[in-house]
Amino acid sequence: MTDAPPIDENICLMTQNFANIPLEWVGPIQLIGPEVNDLVEVPLATFESPLWPSTTRGATLCNKAGGIRVAVLDERMTRSVLVQTATTLEAQIIYNSLFQRKAEIASIAEKTSSHISFTDMHIQVVGNLIYVRLEMRTDDASGHNMVTKASDAVLDWICKTYPEASYVSISGNFCTDKKVSAVNGILGRGKYVVADVTIPRKLIEKFLKTTPEAIVQLNIKKNLIGSIIAGSLRSANAHFANMLLALYLATGQDAANIVEGSQGIVHAEMQGDSLYFSVTLPNIIMGTVGAGKNLDFVQENLTRLGCKNSPNNARRLACIMAATCLSGELSLLGAQTNPGELVGTHMRLERAGKPL
Amino acid sequence: MTDAPPIDENICLMTQNFANIPLEWVGPIQLIGPEVNDLVEVPLATFESPLWPSTTRGATLCNKAGGIRVAVLDERMTRSVLVQTATTLEAQIIYNSLFQRKAEIASIAEKTSSHISFTDMHIQVVGNLIYVRLEMRTDDASGHNMVTKASDAVLDWICKTYPEASYVSISGNFCTDKKVSAVNGILGRGKYVVADVTIPRKLIEKFLKTTPEAIVQLNIKKNLIGSIIAGSLRSANAHFANMLLALYLATGQDAANIVEGSQGIVHAEMQGDSLYFSVTLPNIIMGTVGAGKNLDFVQENLTRLGCKNSPNNARRLACIMAATCLSGELSLLGAQTNPGELVGTHMRLERAGKPL
Amino acid sequence: MTDAPPIDENICLMTQNFANIPLEWVGPIQLIGPEVNDLVEVPLATFESPLWPSTTRGATLCNKAGGIRVAVLDERMTRSVLVQTATTLEAQIIYNSLFQRKAEIASIAEKTSSHISFTDMHIQVVGNLIYVRLEMRTDDASGHNMVTKASDAVLDWICKTYPEASYVSISGNFCTDKKVSAVNGILGRGKYVVADVTIPRKLIEKFLKTTPEAIVQLNIKKNLIGSIIAGSLRSANAHFANMLLALYLATGQDAANIVEGSQGIVHAEMQGDSLYFSVTLPNIIMGTVGAGKNLDFVQENLTRLGCKNSPNNARRLACIMAATCLSGELSLLGAQTNPGELVGTHMRLERAGKPL
Amino acid sequence: MTDAPPIDENICLMTQNFANIPLEWVGPIQLIGPEVNDLVEVPLATFESPLWPSTTRGATLCNKAGGIRVAVLDERMTRSVLVQTATTLEAQIIYNSLFQRKAEIASIAEKTSSHISFTDMHIQVVGNLIYVRLEMRTDDASGHNMVTKASDAVLDWICKTYPEASYVSISGNFCTDKKVSAVNGILGRGKYVVADVTIPRKLIEKFLKTTPEAIVQLNIKKNLIGSIIAGSLRSANAHFANMLLALYLATGQDAANIVEGSQGIVHAEMQGDSLYFSVTLPNIIMGTVGAGKNLDFVQENLTRLGCKNSPNNARRLACIMAATCLSGELSLLGAQTNPGELVGTHMRLERAGKPL
Repeated sequence: MTDAPPIDENICLMTQNFANIPLEWVGPIQLIGPEVNDLVEVPLATFESPLWPSTTRGATLCNKAGGIRVAVLDERMTRSVLVQTATTLEAQIIYNSLFQRKAEIASIAEKTSSHISFTDMHIQVVGNLIYVRLEMRTDDASGHNMVTKASDAVLDWICKTYPEASYVSISGNFCTDKKVSAVNGILGRGKYVVADVTIPRKLIEKFLKTTPEAIVQLNIKKNLIGSIIAGSLRSANAHFANMLLALYLATGQDAANIVEGSQGIVHAEMQGDSLYFSVTLPNIIMGTVGAGKNLDFVQENLTRLGCKNSPNNARRLACIMAATCLSGELSLLGAQTNPGELVGTHMRLERAGKPL
Repeated sequence: MTDAPPIDENICLMTQNFANIPLEWVGPIQLIGPEVNDLVEVPLATFESPLWPSTTRGATLCNKAGGIRVAVLDERMTRSVLVQTATTLEAQIIYNSLFQRKAEIASIAEKTSSHISFTDMHIQVVGNLIYVRLEMRTDDASGHNMVTKASDAVLDWICKTYPEASYVSISGNFCTDKKVSAVNGILGRGKYVVADVTIPRKLIEKFLKTTPEAIVQLNIKKNLIGSIIAGSLRSANAHFANMLLALYLATGQDAANIVEGSQGIVHAEMQGDSLYFSVTLPNIIMGTVGAGKNLDFVQENLTRLGCKNSPNNARRLACIMAATCLSGELSLLGAQTNPGELVGTHMRLERAGKPL
Repeated sequence: MTDAPPIDENICLMTQNFANIPLEWVGPIQLIGPEVNDLVEVPLATFESPLWPSTTRGATLCNKAGGIRVAVLDERMTRSVLVQTATTLEAQIIYNSLFQRKAEIASIAEKTSSHISFTDMHIQVVGNLIYVRLEMRTDDASGHNMVTKASDAVLDWICKTYPEASYVSISGNFCTDKKVSAVNGILGRGKYVVADVTIPRKLIEKFLKTTPEAIVQLNIKKNLIGSIIAGSLRSANAHFANMLLALYLATGQDAANIVEGSQGIVHAEMQGDSLYFSVTLPNIIMGTVGAGKNLDFVQENLTRLGCKNSPNNARRLACIMAATCLSGELSLLGAQTNPGELVGTHMRLERAGKPL
Repeated sequence: MTDAPPIDENICLMTQNFANIPLEWVGPIQLIGPEVNDLVEVPLATFESPLWPSTTRGATLCNKAGGIRVAVLDERMTRSVLVQTATTLEAQIIYNSLFQRKAEIASIAEKTSSHISFTDMHIQVVGNLIYVRLEMRTDDASGHNMVTKASDAVLDWICKTYPEASYVSISGNFCTDKKVSAVNGILGRGKYVVADVTIPRKLIEKFLKTTPEAIVQLNIKKNLIGSIIAGSLRSANAHFANMLLALYLATGQDAANIVEGSQGIVHAEMQGDSLYFSVTLPNIIMGTVGAGKNLDFVQENLTRLGCKNSPNNARRLACIMAATCLSGELSLLGAQTNPGELVGTHMRLERAGKPL
């Protein structure tokens, strides 16, 4: 449902067509950590075919180095309801009262679904406007719809409990869904996943024709400083969006969530003579059940990924996504350290008649 | 090619699978303006099926009001190459020299393709690092590959012309591709498109069950102020990303470019007794030829959109994208002004067994 | 202490000079609310002398309308310490452990000063880096030094408790002090203050030679949309920085904190036939005791402001600051609605030989 | 005048008071480069007295290393006027026309003062709103007033030339003055200054009790990554705001401009066995004539700085500001690499009864 469009049922919904996005399985990738210890192949649906061999190149290198470590630090789905009062003095009273009645609010939210576990609440007051960000766990679902429904119940309760407050919107954009923000990274939305790997110099030289130092330097000068001067926001990477989109399409995710999901950070450094390379994805919105997941090809892909019957299907898939981002990012950075490699490879591929 | 992954040709690229994204044609939408005066149906590929009737609802309302006006203000594709010197004094000398030799640089870029027209250049120096953002027109192509190839030639020339400068990267993230930034909106990247419509009160009441004033207020409190407190960046809308993604997938675009493309702004106000409603998309990356465009379903969709043989195929498609964003945005905002409508509609649809 | 510079005691600190910043008392301003109900004059130290009559104009208008309502929603001072581990798996373990031992951490912090009350803790992991943002109340002090000292104790404990974690910095910039950020507004730092006023049309016409509607429109188009296209961040105002700086200098604050303090929002709307006008300052760093407060002129100013012996000196001063920002902001917006007024007034003043 | 408040001449402007900010001369600092080759002492006015010895410590170290190189890359002052039309189609026509008549606009601006040299113009259209950013050189003045007056003339001409355009504001916040933004760094406002230094390991060890590597690492983990996760914007430093404020107050600048001036970047790296350390200040607003500069102590300070009769007084002062920021930044980063040094030094100072 996300920031979801309404339905006019008089319009017939006959789905007659498809956009058939080319899909390849890449990898495998060796994952290590408390959520997943497994060798996994990964489906990438994309128009940009060089993404397939490139991601596999990165994954193969990481496997040789012993695999990619992945940790899920946090998870939640959010919706911010919006009400307003006459003046800020009434807003302050409601602000204080809402915090005092947090347990009551949690109970209202949790009554709307057995899958909901209320986590936290953050409030911002702007003049006489009150933005209440409601945060919940939603099992294996990304939880857009579930949390909107729960928030609707809370919003209804707020308007009835505080006659001074009037309805403005079920979503006040402090959530925030499918939009650039700092709030999702700082307060959390979706899964917070970190992946890293340590790679000896020799493997870097052999697989990427470059050095650990060159990758560290490129990351600093391109991903960190380059992003800063571009006026970026909580984002420092080369192309997380490519891998995320391809995985989202292959697994039935609401793929517009790559907008905020791609706001992640690469940190690399020398550890002795080896390259330490990490990707941090503080807020990727995804799930393994719910809207989009019942299509046949999605069910097949989730099954092959082992994300249908694991103890934590969604967390497992989040780990796979982070490890795939790491593989694709590492491969591209390796290529960009070498003058001409990026363009040259593409031109060879074009001459060979491969689709780009 | 974008921030494009490299290829290892030893890996076979046999595309055996597809992610089949459900696609519906919505609309039609009446477009008005110097680029397009036409009634157009639009293909949306998405897992989020409510997007179809919702966008059609918005389009139908706009048609009744006389149609959506659209203007393309600017267009360009960019790539920022990155070199470094020993100290900032050498960087300053190169900085000044590059501006003086802009015509020479333009000539080098334009030699790499007959489709390239060099537009402008912006340079940022950070200590001893020099980021050169090269900007070009690329006809009907989005131009990722074309401009990367041209930039590679310029970069090669820079390294040869200034021995004090050494290669760091073909892409320094000041471009910037598929990443959140302020630079693309301020300096331009892709098409800069604005669409607006003026709708009498009676039509708003009939189609959206709300008032012009309610939509104006919601836009201010949700899209403007709500986005600001979320820590957004040059972005103030409810769900541009939904419409953009669906159109990108249906027309073979590099859909990860919705990350920055969705950084757009809604401005609404009362004009007399009518609603003035506009969407501004300062930097949508898209084209009608190039990677992804040769797939059969894409060719069919582009043909039906009239974007194969018009005088300005890519600009026509950009206008269609903006008008579609307007339609979907207006419909959602209308729904959110009414307590319970969003959740209620979704629940009715769910009970009816429709895919969500 | 802030992000404070170290001392070399061998260098003699003989203060022989002063920068004598011209200071005027403006107002008075009528304040209303749970913290302050009082008519207060306000000292502004500035090189920009038009600020004095302009702020008084705004204040006088607000007084006629019944006064400015002010509420303090929250308060805290923060410091983020930074440690690192070998890999993200160790970081995850420490991340989880720190949350479990929050009470212990609070106790360590509170032992360092009787003025400290530990409030909350937020942690971000980036690869193998761990940023721990420690948040505390500090009575009437802004609390830079106090919280740095407490954080130093916590940091020492972390390094001893988790041998896998090594020291990186007493401040990891996730605090954040005297720098642009989204984190201070979202998680809180300093005082969170909101002020508003409701002004009948006639008073707007008489005092500002404009209309409520014109001010509402100007705020939307300049402060909201204009700031958004400038690539602003959690900031939508015309010149909060002017009033804040002048008050900070007059009351001995660490005035570099206007960098983040000025990131505030103006929200204005019609309420019936009146103008509703509000300023929201989510994170102004200030206090009434500590560094800078012992200078004679500061003591005099704080006394005259009633901020020496009130029950809540710092909260009282925060309210005064917000009301002053409101007065100055309203006056300037009023002027900018009228073509030529801004330039004309300045030129008359210049001809009169007044200092600008 | 900046975003300047209007004057009501009926209010008497008798300046009877001052905020006496303690001022120390620090340094000297050896500057090298095309603008300045000189050994300069620098006045810092601040309540934060540790800033004096700390900055001197950094400067002394840099002098031993041969001095600080400084380059001024660009300079301009800006103001964005704001008009609106009925629909975006009229806005597009005006947008195109304004670019075609750029020479005419330049001429109008330059007629308002012999000190103005028109540089460039950037326009953003949002729906039916047109923001025109006018950019000019203003000799040794910061140019707030001068450019506002010139912009007023251009705005008047726009409203007369295009009857479809109506006045909204002399300032549309796309300028942008005294506010956080990305636009000032990307399009320029004020002086664009870069300073750097190369320091042998032995000097780092002796003066800062640390290593070049430790400073490089701290800069990456605190200033770059820490700022990114704080949700910063085009800003990556520890405390530029401290040095800038102190220099602004001492030299009669409109000190609220530290808000955007402090949005600068530190880049440090190993060069062989030495530390390369740089500060980049892309947009510091300052001048040596105009408002605030006629006060006696300001005249004295400018004279002693050599900024009264040099060929380029303002550019010379900009260089001094950048070199001072470098000195203060380097000293603080050095201190933060050592556990306990920051707190320990402050406590010793406090015990000695020194003002903090």
